Amino acid sequence: MAALRAAGAANALRPSVAAGSVASSRSFSSAGAVRKAAQPFHKDEPQAPVLKTKSIPGPESTRYIDDLNKSFETRSVNMMVDYTKSVGNYVADPDGNLLLDVYAQIASIPVGYNNAALAEVAQSPEMVCAIINRPALGNFPSHTWASLLKTGVLKVAPKGLDNVYTAMAGSDANEIAYKAAFMYRRQLERGGPDAEFTPEELESAMRNEAPGSPQLSILSFKQGFHGRLFGSLSTTRSKPIHKLDIPAFDWPQATFPQCKYPMDQHVEENEKAEQASLDEPIQSEGGDNHAPPSFFRKLRALTKKHNVLLIVDEVQTGVGATGKFWAHDHWNLQDPPDMVTFSKKAQTAGYYYRTKDMRPNKPYRQFNTWMGDPAKALLFRGIINEIERLDLVNHTAKVGDYLYGKIEGLAKQYPDHFRNLRGKGQGTFIAFDNPKRDAFLAKAKTFGINIGGSGTSAVRLRPMLIFQQHHADILVEALEKIVKAL
Amino acid sequence: MAALRAAGAANALRPSVAAGSVASSRSFSSAGAVRKAAQPFHKDEPQAPVLKTKSIPGPESTRYIDDLNKSFETRSVNMMVDYTKSVGNYVADPDGNLLLDVYAQIASIPVGYNNAALAEVAQSPEMVCAIINRPALGNFPSHTWASLLKTGVLKVAPKGLDNVYTAMAGSDANEIAYKAAFMYRRQLERGGPDAEFTPEELESAMRNEAPGSPQLSILSFKQGFHGRLFGSLSTTRSKPIHKLDIPAFDWPQATFPQCKYPMDQHVEENEKAEQASLDEPIQSEGGDNHAPPSFFRKLRALTKKHNVLLIVDEVQTGVGATGKFWAHDHWNLQDPPDMVTFSKKAQTAGYYYRTKDMRPNKPYRQFNTWMGDPAKALLFRGIINEIERLDLVNHTAKVGDYLYGKIEGLAKQYPDHFRNLRGKGQGTFIAFDNPKRDAFLAKAKTFGINIGGSGTSAVRLRPMLIFQQHHADILVEALEKIVKAL
Repeated sequence: MAALRAAGAANALRPSVAAGSVASSRSFSSAGAVRKAAQPFHKDEPQAPVLKTKSIPGPESTRYIDDLNKSFETRSVNMMVDYTKSVGNYVADPDGNLLLDVYAQIASIPVGYNNAALAEVAQSPEMVCAIINRPALGNFPSHTWASLLKTGVLKVAPKGLDNVYTAMAGSDANEIAYKAAFMYRRQLERGGPDAEFTPEELESAMRNEAPGSPQLSILSFKQGFHGRLFGSLSTTRSKPIHKLDIPAFDWPQATFPQCKYPMDQHVEENEKAEQASLDEPIQSEGGDNHAPPSFFRKLRALTKKHNVLLIVDEVQTGVGATGKFWAHDHWNLQDPPDMVTFSKKAQTAGYYYRTKDMRPNKPYRQFNTWMGDPAKALLFRGIINEIERLDLVNHTAKVGDYLYGKIEGLAKQYPDHFRNLRGKGQGTFIAFDNPKRDAFLAKAKTFGINIGGSGTSAVRLRPMLIFQQHHADILVEALEKIVKAL
Repeated sequence: MAALRAAGAANALRPSVAAGSVASSRSFSSAGAVRKAAQPFHKDEPQAPVLKTKSIPGPESTRYIDDLNKSFETRSVNMMVDYTKSVGNYVADPDGNLLLDVYAQIASIPVGYNNAALAEVAQSPEMVCAIINRPALGNFPSHTWASLLKTGVLKVAPKGLDNVYTAMAGSDANEIAYKAAFMYRRQLERGGPDAEFTPEELESAMRNEAPGSPQLSILSFKQGFHGRLFGSLSTTRSKPIHKLDIPAFDWPQATFPQCKYPMDQHVEENEKAEQASLDEPIQSEGGDNHAPPSFFRKLRALTKKHNVLLIVDEVQTGVGATGKFWAHDHWNLQDPPDMVTFSKKAQTAGYYYRTKDMRPNKPYRQFNTWMGDPAKALLFRGIINEIERLDLVNHTAKVGDYLYGKIEGLAKQYPDHFRNLRGKGQGTFIAFDNPKRDAFLAKAKTFGINIGGSGTSAVRLRPMLIFQQHHADILVEALEKIVKAL
């Protein structure tokens, strides 16, 4: 993907945050000075977080949560949000608080709240048409669909994977990739695409029994997270609460390398920790577990050797946050993965795949009513254009290095609070462990930061691609205050 | 749901179809006369189908399909569509053909192509905000979410089910309902919501083994269709091509009543055909199989007796097409179902459920990143408003009766071609079997009709809710021409 314009161009934003309300509030001191050094992508962002209530949720938010709770699950509500007042890297709540958001809707907001370019896309005639005339894509695609794919989803296709099946979200993207892998495998066993199904296969499939419903497996890594529908959940190994009481396929798991961080200081030990299988490039939900590129190159060689398809789950790691468009770009693979799944920051979802012969041998084998959503594909195209316009992947690589260096400094000062710092050279895809992690996350809000965790003890940073150096300074200052207050 | 205004108000449409191009084309004669009798909901519709090419796909469509095929599955393409030129009940292609569409994107377009009221919703500031600031709903709901649910999704909640979990499409709506059922069941067995998980459960769940991953089942009906992800596919029993090569849960199936049609002439025989289990109210995908309300009342009683949750899959049957808002409204159940799943015409998805104690006992057990999409919930609200404004549910009941009567006439004249006519009193949710079904569907296009099938021999009618008497006349005239040409 080529960068069309250097970073730094101001991105006009709907003026949804009144400067007055910001000025009259508690705010943090460092931002003003830093702002002079960097031109913000979103000019209407506040200079620093704004705190209006002693605790979050404040009284207005609490009222909204109580009302919602009458008919909708609210026990997982982290924060009630006023999206009309959120701006750029800052998330607003109905009490007037404005937090620097380095969680970004679980890593799914790429170019900032109320991004002006996306607002234009959202109001375009194409978008209106896509919303009110949603097609059954497999049966009745729009004549504009091929062109939309070419200028959007496929423009950023991983090297060597220029076909795509679209989907709705990460879970179903993974599941249709799994289905494709099973169909591919059975086709190999059967002797090719022209071999007919046997009567026994046809009949046993209707009873959910082999050979029609074969006992094949997806091998996934321990601690990995790949979604929570029945097939994807069977490959998810993050936490019991994700899996309890749900019937699962008896599929195997492999150990993900238990690397020591920083990885460049533990090369020899980490080399011993390499094993084979299929997985996400960095275990995000499972605790932000990294492995060196050499591991993935060996994994690719091993899967090739055994004729096993390699599916790389880039739902969380894809679309720029690691300082490359796809995290597996860091691996320098000679042979690309067989499939790469995507969603989150793409706002749409699906899997890229290598060649037409990976399509099932007959139509309607990989099929459902909507098969994705052109409206979301339009949005992804807008996001891609914004990433190119502001050169956000390279920008994120640089800001990530800056941020990592600053947190490395904190880790030296507070080694107990910033354990196993990881993500060096991985853009802003940075994490560390904290022994009081849940308290850490809660406390962060009182210092103006919205931040998330992963696994059992990791604090994970998932800022947007428009996170800049002055935001990093605000974040680092807050991180120190948080650990001092723990 | 109250009807706010009687049917018949003209619904202004974006003038996307030039009258000139319609007039200069082949068209069918009956429409003009009928139009005088009924005021059309969409005033820019042509008076009849317009055929510009001898066969469909024509040359332009073929060019677009070939281009798309380079990177996307096209073997299931039924018709390449120009959505900018589609209008009301008519679907356009790039060759200038305009077909009366009684398939409607596999039963998912409710109020017509390029509906003006939905176009307004799509351009509203709320929609723009929802599109560009998509929330992780479980963690960071908008302060407007409760109000949007109340005025939309929950306004049409089935009687007795005033809670909702939202989702993305029919498959995942069914799967999260299944998950809720499993968690509910295990909670009963465990002794209530406060009983803790055992260490053995916690540990075995991580290995995909019992007791943590229990061997519980969803019982579904033979021929039923409930989606194609791994859990939903295990309950789908429609066709081998849907299931082959995909590992499945060893879950049981029950026989759906094999009713004879018309049902009111085979009461005694049909009463013998009743058995118990969980299912969609009318088997749509599996061949449009109906059962009488008494069957479902007995099913509800039986599931109550055995403390089994009853999930009604209204993904295809819901939102008005049967002449009631929900098909199970026809059953006059004393106790509502425990869960009702929805999608398609709702454009959003999810499941309604009875009470808060059907929520899992802890947060994050029913959770994923997006948990639905407020943009689609806004669209559903617009659809509900349009249904109320034009009283489309009652309208569909009436038009359905009219259409059924007409096809009954055809069935008397051509009994071999309109076998097992079904859907009497079920709005436009009408189907019949034809021995040359696939040829029937293909031939229909040459007479200006886009129509779909279900099961192996059924022709299913799935017109939109704005399908009117004059459309029924066009359709019936075409049906006769089709069977004469077979």
